[in-house]
Amino acid sequence: MDDEQRLELRVIGVVRSPLRDPADAPRQGDEGAPRAQVVLDPQVWPGLDGLQVGQELLVLTWLHRARRDVLQTRPRNDPHRPEQGVFTTRSPDRPNPLGLHPVRVLAFGGNTVEVDGLEAIDGTPVVDLKPLLGPLDER
Amino acid sequence: MDDEQRLELRVIGVVRSPLRDPADAPRQGDEGAPRAQVVLDPQVWPGLDGLQVGQELLVLTWLHRARRDVLQTRPRNDPHRPEQGVFTTRSPDRPNPLGLHPVRVLAFGGNTVEVDGLEAIDGTPVVDLKPLLGPLDER
Repeated sequence: MDDEQRLELRVIGVVRSPLRDPADAPRQGDEGAPRAQVVLDPQVWPGLDGLQVGQELLVLTWLHRARRDVLQTRPRNDPHRPEQGVFTTRSPDRPNPLGLHPVRVLAFGGNTVEVDGLEAIDGTPVVDLKPLLGPLDER
Repeated sequence: MDDEQRLELRVIGVVRSPLRDPADAPRQGDEGAPRAQVVLDPQVWPGLDGLQVGQELLVLTWLHRARRDVLQTRPRNDPHRPEQGVFTTRSPDRPNPLGLHPVRVLAFGGNTVEVDGLEAIDGTPVVDLKPLLGPLDER
Protein backbone atom coordinates (compact mmCIF):
# COMPACT_ATOMS: atom_id res chain seq x y z
CA MET A 1 0.00 0.00 0.00
CA ASP A 2 1.39 3.40 -0.85
CA ASP A 3 2.45 6.21 1.43
CA GLU A 4 -0.64 8.27 0.73
CA GLN A 5 -2.61 5.71 2.70
CA ARG A 6 -0.78 6.29 5.98
CA LEU A 7 -3.43 7.12 8.54
CA GLU A 8 -2.85 8.90 11.77
CA LEU A 9 -5.02 8.37 14.82
CA ARG A 10 -5.64 11.18 17.25
CA VAL A 11 -5.53 10.20 20.92
CA ILE A 12 -8.81 11.43 22.42
CA GLY A 13 -8.32 10.15 25.95
CA VAL A 14 -6.67 7.66 28.25
CA VAL A 15 -7.69 4.69 30.40
CA ARG A 16 -7.20 5.09 34.16
CA SER A 17 -7.31 1.73 35.87
CA PRO A 18 -5.88 -0.20 38.83
CA LEU A 19 -4.44 -2.59 36.19
CA ARG A 20 -0.78 -1.65 35.77
CA ASP A 21 0.75 -4.62 34.00
CA PRO A 22 -0.54 -6.46 30.91
CA ALA A 23 0.24 -9.73 32.71
CA ASP A 24 -2.36 -8.85 35.35
CA ALA A 25 -5.09 -7.94 32.87
CA PRO A 26 -7.83 -10.44 32.10
CA ARG A 27 -8.03 -11.48 28.47
CA GLN A 28 -11.49 -9.99 27.98
CA GLY A 29 -13.56 -7.46 29.86
CA ASP A 30 -16.11 -10.06 30.94
CA GLU A 31 -13.42 -12.20 32.56
CA GLY A 32 -13.03 -10.22 35.76
CA ALA A 33 -11.84 -6.80 34.57
CA PRO A 34 -12.13 -3.98 37.12
CA ARG A 35 -13.90 -0.67 37.01
CA ALA A 36 -11.94 1.95 35.14
CA GLN A 37 -12.16 5.55 34.02
CA VAL A 38 -11.98 6.85 30.49
CA VAL A 39 -10.53 10.34 30.85
CA LEU A 40 -11.18 12.31 27.69
CA ASP A 41 -9.37 15.24 26.16
CA PRO A 42 -11.62 18.20 27.14
CA GLN A 43 -11.69 19.25 23.47
CA VAL A 44 -13.74 16.18 22.51
CA TRP A 45 -16.12 16.21 25.49
CA PRO A 46 -19.00 17.64 23.36
CA GLY A 47 -18.85 14.33 21.48
CA LEU A 48 -20.41 12.63 24.52
CA ASP A 49 -23.59 14.68 24.48
CA GLY A 50 -26.52 12.31 24.97
CA LEU A 51 -24.57 9.75 26.99
CA GLN A 52 -26.63 7.91 29.62
CA VAL A 53 -25.74 6.07 32.78
CA GLY A 54 -26.32 2.37 32.15
CA GLN A 55 -25.62 2.68 28.43
CA GLU A 56 -23.39 0.11 26.76
CA LEU A 57 -20.42 1.53 24.86
CA LEU A 58 -17.55 0.17 22.86
CA VAL A 59 -14.29 1.77 23.92
CA LEU A 60 -11.68 1.63 21.16
CA THR A 61 -8.11 1.78 22.38
CA TRP A 62 -4.58 1.61 21.03
CA LEU A 63 -2.87 -1.28 22.83
CA HIS A 64 0.44 0.52 23.10
CA ARG A 65 2.36 -2.40 24.64
CA ALA A 66 1.48 -4.78 21.80
CA ARG A 67 3.82 -6.03 19.11
CA ARG A 68 2.95 -4.90 15.59
CA ASP A 69 5.26 -7.35 13.79
CA VAL A 70 3.39 -10.50 14.84
CA LEU A 71 1.05 -12.27 12.40
CA GLN A 72 0.65 -15.65 14.11
CA THR A 73 0.11 -16.48 17.76
CA ARG A 74 -1.22 -19.15 20.11
CA PRO A 75 -4.76 -18.24 21.25
CA ARG A 76 -4.80 -17.17 24.90
CA ASN A 77 -1.02 -17.90 24.97
CA ASP A 78 -1.90 -21.55 25.52
CA PRO A 79 1.16 -23.65 24.56
CA HIS A 80 -1.14 -26.62 23.88
CA ARG A 81 -2.96 -24.81 21.10
CA PRO A 82 -1.44 -24.49 17.62
CA GLU A 83 -0.41 -21.13 16.26
CA GLN A 84 -3.02 -19.35 14.20
CA GLY A 85 -3.32 -16.03 12.42
CA VAL A 86 -3.77 -12.97 14.62
CA PHE A 87 -6.85 -11.91 12.65
CA THR A 88 -8.66 -15.04 13.84
CA THR A 89 -7.75 -14.29 17.49
CA ARG A 90 -8.22 -11.37 19.84
CA SER A 91 -4.49 -11.17 20.58
CA PRO A 92 -3.33 -7.58 21.18
CA ASP A 93 -0.33 -8.36 18.96
CA ARG A 94 -1.30 -7.49 15.38
CA PRO A 95 -0.36 -4.94 12.69
CA ASN A 96 -2.74 -2.34 14.15
CA PRO A 97 -3.18 -3.06 17.87
CA LEU A 98 -6.68 -1.66 18.21
CA GLY A 99 -8.54 -2.81 21.32
CA LEU A 100 -12.32 -3.20 21.41
CA HIS A 101 -13.83 -3.08 24.88
CA PRO A 102 -17.57 -3.41 25.50
CA VAL A 103 -18.37 -1.62 28.76
CA ARG A 104 -21.33 -0.22 30.68
CA VAL A 105 -21.38 3.42 31.77
CA LEU A 106 -21.55 3.67 35.56
CA ALA A 107 -21.23 7.45 35.86
CA PHE A 108 -19.82 10.43 34.03
CA GLY A 109 -18.92 14.02 34.68
CA GLY A 110 -16.08 16.48 34.27
CA ASN A 111 -14.18 14.87 31.44
CA THR A 112 -14.35 11.35 32.86
CA VAL A 113 -16.57 8.36 32.10
CA GLU A 114 -16.59 5.63 34.75
CA VAL A 115 -17.13 2.16 33.29
CA ASP A 116 -17.22 -1.44 34.43
CA GLY A 117 -15.21 -4.35 33.12
CA LEU A 118 -12.45 -2.68 31.06
CA GLU A 119 -9.41 -4.94 30.65
CA ALA A 120 -6.94 -2.36 29.28
CA ILE A 121 -4.07 -1.27 31.53
CA ASP A 122 -3.65 2.16 33.06
CA GLY A 123 -2.36 4.65 30.50
CA THR A 124 -3.79 2.92 27.42
CA PRO A 125 -4.66 5.54 24.77
CA VAL A 126 -8.34 5.82 23.80
CA VAL A 127 -9.15 6.56 20.15
CA ASP A 128 -12.95 6.25 19.85
CA LEU A 129 -16.19 5.51 21.69
CA LYS A 130 -19.25 4.04 19.99
CA PRO A 131 -22.65 2.93 21.27
CA LEU A 132 -23.51 -0.73 21.03
CA LEU A 133 -26.27 -1.04 18.47
CA GLY A 134 -29.68 -2.19 19.59
CA PRO A 135 -32.39 -3.75 17.42
CA LEU A 136 -33.15 -2.13 14.06
CA ASP A 137 -36.26 -0.34 15.31
CA GLU A 138 -34.37 1.43 18.08
CA ARG A 139 -31.65 3.05 15.97
CA MET B 1 -2.26 15.08 24.31
CA ASP B 2 1.37 15.40 23.30
CA ASP B 3 3.04 14.60 20.02
CA GLU B 4 4.59 11.40 21.29
CA GLN B 5 1.11 9.91 21.31
CA ARG B 6 0.57 10.25 17.58
CA LEU B 7 -0.34 6.82 16.32
CA GLU B 8 -0.07 5.65 12.77
CA LEU B 9 -2.29 2.95 11.33
CA ARG B 10 -0.99 0.64 8.65
CA VAL B 11 -3.43 -0.08 5.83
CA ILE B 12 -3.63 -3.89 5.61
CA GLY B 13 -6.21 -4.14 2.86
CA VAL B 14 -9.07 -2.56 0.98
CA VAL B 15 -12.82 -3.10 0.58
CA ARG B 16 -14.00 -4.04 -2.93
CA SER B 17 -17.73 -3.50 -3.23
CA PRO B 18 -20.44 -2.52 -5.72
CA LEU B 19 -21.13 0.42 -3.37
CA ARG B 20 -19.42 3.45 -4.92
CA ASP B 21 -20.97 6.41 -3.15
CA PRO B 22 -21.49 6.92 0.61
CA ALA B 23 -25.00 8.18 -0.20
CA ASP B 24 -25.88 4.73 -1.56
CA ALA B 25 -24.51 2.80 1.41
CA PRO B 26 -26.91 1.49 4.06
CA ARG B 27 -26.26 2.85 7.53
CA GLN B 28 -25.39 -0.55 8.97
CA GLY B 29 -24.38 -3.87 7.48
CA ASP B 30 -27.64 -5.54 8.50
CA GLU B 31 -29.70 -2.93 6.66
CA GLY B 32 -29.27 -4.32 3.17
CA ALA B 33 -25.54 -4.08 2.54
CA PRO B 34 -24.20 -6.14 -0.37
CA ARG B 35 -21.58 -8.83 -0.56
CA ALA B 36 -18.10 -7.42 -0.68
CA GLN B 37 -14.48 -8.51 -0.80
CA VAL B 38 -11.78 -7.67 1.68
CA VAL B 39 -8.57 -7.73 -0.38
CA LEU B 40 -5.59 -7.98 1.93
CA ASP B 41 -2.00 -6.92 1.48
CA PRO B 42 -0.26 -10.26 0.68
CA GLN B 43 2.24 -9.50 3.47
CA VAL B 44 -0.43 -9.92 6.16
CA TRP B 45 -2.15 -13.00 4.68
CA PRO B 46 -0.52 -15.33 7.27
CA GLY B 47 -2.58 -13.45 9.85
CA LEU B 48 -5.70 -15.19 8.51
CA ASP B 49 -4.47 -18.70 9.27
CA GLY B 50 -7.35 -20.62 10.90
CA LEU B 51 -10.10 -18.65 9.16
CA GLN B 52 -13.25 -20.66 8.44
CA VAL B 53 -16.08 -20.24 5.98
CA GLY B 54 -19.17 -19.27 7.96
CA GLN B 55 -17.15 -17.56 10.69
CA GLU B 56 -18.27 -14.15 11.94
CA LEU B 57 -15.63 -11.44 11.79
CA LEU B 58 -15.41 -7.79 12.66
CA VAL B 59 -13.84 -5.81 9.84
CA LEU B 60 -12.26 -2.58 11.07
CA THR B 61 -11.97 0.11 8.44
CA TRP B 62 -10.87 3.72 8.10
CA LEU B 63 -13.87 5.65 6.76
CA HIS B 64 -11.77 7.84 4.53
CA ARG B 65 -14.64 10.05 3.34
CA ALA B 66 -15.67 11.03 6.87
CA ARG B 67 -15.14 14.40 8.53
CA ARG B 68 -12.79 14.37 11.50
CA ASP B 69 -13.72 17.83 12.80
CA VAL B 70 -17.31 16.95 13.73
CA LEU B 71 -18.24 16.29 17.38
CA GLN B 72 -22.04 16.56 17.19
CA THR B 73 -24.46 15.22 14.63
CA ARG B 74 -28.08 14.20 14.09
CA PRO B 75 -28.47 10.43 14.36
CA ARG B 76 -29.11 8.84 10.97
CA ASN B 77 -29.06 12.39 9.51
CA ASP B 78 -32.70 12.71 10.61
CA PRO B 79 -33.54 16.44 10.78
CA HIS B 80 -36.29 15.68 13.31
CA ARG B 81 -33.82 14.34 15.86
CA PRO B 82 -31.74 16.68 18.01
CA GLU B 83 -28.00 16.87 17.63
CA GLN B 84 -26.03 14.61 19.91
CA GLY B 85 -22.40 13.75 20.47
CA VAL B 86 -20.75 11.59 17.82
CA PHE B 87 -19.53 9.14 20.49
CA THR B 88 -23.16 8.26 21.28
CA THR B 89 -23.92 7.62 17.57
CA ARG B 90 -22.46 5.43 14.84
CA SER B 91 -21.89 8.41 12.55
CA PRO B 92 -18.79 7.98 10.37
CA ASP B 93 -17.94 11.60 11.19
CA ARG B 94 -15.78 11.59 14.36
CA PRO B 95 -12.19 12.40 15.38
CA ASN B 96 -10.99 8.92 14.36
CA PRO B 97 -13.32 7.60 11.65
CA LEU B 98 -12.91 3.92 12.44
CA GLY B 99 -15.63 1.70 10.98
CA LEU B 100 -16.73 -1.53 12.69
CA HIS B 101 -18.43 -4.03 10.39
CA PRO B 102 -19.70 -7.39 11.59
CA VAL B 103 -19.69 -9.78 8.63
CA ARG B 104 -19.86 -13.48 7.85
CA VAL B 105 -17.13 -15.15 5.79
CA LEU B 106 -18.60 -16.61 2.59
CA ALA B 107 -15.34 -17.75 0.99
CA PHE B 108 -11.66 -16.95 0.96
CA GLY B 109 -8.60 -17.61 -1.13
CA GLY B 110 -5.70 -15.86 -2.83
CA ASN B 111 -5.54 -12.71 -0.74
CA THR B 112 -9.29 -12.09 -0.74
CA VAL B 113 -12.02 -12.75 1.83
CA GLU B 114 -15.58 -12.68 0.49
CA VAL B 115 -18.11 -11.47 3.07
CA ASP B 116 -21.78 -10.65 3.29
CA GLY B 117 -23.39 -7.44 4.45
CA LEU B 118 -20.50 -4.94 4.45
CA GLU B 119 -21.74 -1.36 4.19
CA ALA B 120 -18.40 0.37 3.45
CA ILE B 121 -17.86 1.77 -0.03
CA ASP B 122 -15.41 0.47 -2.61
CA GLY B 123 -11.88 1.57 -1.81
CA THR B 124 -12.33 1.89 1.96
CA PRO B 125 -9.04 1.06 3.72
CA VAL B 126 -9.08 -1.96 6.04
CA VAL B 127 -7.00 -1.75 9.23
CA ASP B 128 -7.86 -4.89 11.23
CA LEU B 129 -9.93 -8.07 11.34
CA LYS B 130 -11.07 -9.72 14.57
CA PRO B 131 -13.25 -12.73 15.33
CA LEU B 132 -16.54 -12.13 17.07
CA LEU B 133 -16.22 -13.63 20.53
CA GLY B 134 -18.38 -16.58 21.43
CA PRO B 135 -19.32 -17.73 24.94
CA LEU B 136 -16.57 -17.89 27.56
CA ASP B 137 -16.15 -21.65 27.31
CA GLU B 138 -15.44 -21.52 23.56
CA ARG B 139 -12.56 -19.03 23.63
